[in-house]
Amino acid sequence: MRALELSRRERKKDETRERIAAVAMRLFLQRGFERTTIDQIAEAADVAKGTFFNYFPRKEALLAALADQRLSEMERFAESLLQSRRPVRRKLLDLVARAGAIHIQHRDLSRLLLAEMLAKPMGPMHQVHVRAQAIMRRLVDQGQAAGELRGDVDPDRAASVLRGVAFGTVLFWLCCAPGAFVLEDEIRKRLSLVLDGLAAPAGKAS
Amino acid sequence: MRALELSRRERKKDETRERIAAVAMRLFLQRGFERTTIDQIAEAADVAKGTFFNYFPRKEALLAALADQRLSEMERFAESLLQSRRPVRRKLLDLVARAGAIHIQHRDLSRLLLAEMLAKPMGPMHQVHVRAQAIMRRLVDQGQAAGELRGDVDPDRAASVLRGVAFGTVLFWLCCAPGAFVLEDEIRKRLSLVLDGLAAPAGKAS
Repeated sequence: MRALELSRRERKKDETRERIAAVAMRLFLQRGFERTTIDQIAEAADVAKGTFFNYFPRKEALLAALADQRLSEMERFAESLLQSRRPVRRKLLDLVARAGAIHIQHRDLSRLLLAEMLAKPMGPMHQVHVRAQAIMRRLVDQGQAAGELRGDVDPDRAASVLRGVAFGTVLFWLCCAPGAFVLEDEIRKRLSLVLDGLAAPAGKAS
Repeated sequence: MRALELSRRERKKDETRERIAAVAMRLFLQRGFERTTIDQIAEAADVAKGTFFNYFPRKEALLAALADQRLSEMERFAESLLQSRRPVRRKLLDLVARAGAIHIQHRDLSRLLLAEMLAKPMGPMHQVHVRAQAIMRRLVDQGQAAGELRGDVDPDRAASVLRGVAFGTVLFWLCCAPGAFVLEDEIRKRLSLVLDGLAAPAGKAS
C-alpha cells in the first residue's frame, strides 16, 4: 500500500502543479504577466501562497511551465504529421504555421519567454531549444529518407535553417512589426523560399 | 558669427556624446555592463555625472549608441561590398560573417541589445531593424539585377529570410551554444543552404 500511496501523493502533486500553471496562464493572458500577482494566482488556483512557492520559486518559473506546455503541443502535432502520408514539404509548412499560431495566441508571453531565455543562457529554457530542434530534425530526417529533401545536407543544419527562418519571422513580428504582416502566411512563404532556394537557376542569369 | 558659434557648440556636444559612448563601451567590454557604474563612465570620460545624464538618461540608453556604432560599421562594409565586382553570393556570405564577427567581439552587449529590443518593442531599437533590413535589401537588389538571385522573389522577403537565418544562428550561439560551433563558419554554411535551397532536385528523389 505504501508505494501506491506514494504514487497517489505524487500524482496529486503533479495535478496541483498543473492546476497552478493553467490558472496562471489564464490570468497572464487576461491581465498581462506583470500585472498578475502571485496572490491572485494562489487564490484562483485555491492554494495557499506558501503552497505556490513549493511548486514555483518565482513568477518567472511559470514561464518554463508554459514553454513545456507549448512544446508538448508541438510534439503531439509533429507526431501526427510524421504519421501522415502527405509530402514532407507540406508537413514542414504546417508545422511552422502551427508554431506561428501559438505565438499569435500568447503574444506577450512569447516575448517574456524570449527575454527569459536571453537573461539566463543555458538556463531552464535551454530545453526549449533542444526539444524544438528534435521536432524539426525528425521531419527533416523523414524528408531526406523520402528523397524530398537534399540528402547531402547535414540534417541538424537543415533543421536549424528552417527554425531560424521561422523564428526570425516570429521575433520580428513580436518586436517590431505588429500588424505589418500575417504571421502564419509570412512564415509559410519564407519557409517555401528556403526549401526552393534564393539563387537563380544556373544559365538563367540575365 | 552667431550661427558659427552655434554650430561649434553643436559639434562640441556631438564630440562629448561620442566620447562618453566610446568610453562606456570600453568599460562594458572590460568589466561587463552590469558592473560598470555611471560614476565610472563619467570619470573615465572626464565629465560630471550631471553632464552624463544630459546625454544619456540611463545606462541602457548607451545600448542604442552601441547599436548605432555597429550599424554604421556594417553600412560602411556593405557600401564597399556593393562597389566591388565579386559575385553577390560571396558578398552576402561576407556580410553575414562580418556581422557574426561583431557579435563575437561584443558577446555580452549583443545579449543586452536583444533583451532591450524585446523589452521595448517599437522603441529606439526599432531603427536597428530598419537599417539592417536596408543593408541586406541593397545586396539582394544587386543580386536580382545581376540575375544571380531569383527575380521572382519579393526582395524584402528574400532579405528577411537571409537575415532570419543569420540572426537565428547568432541568437542560438549567444543563448545556448557557447562553443558548440564557430559562429562565422556556421553562418556561412547556413546562408549557403538558403541560397541553394533544401529541396531535392526534382527527379532525383529516390
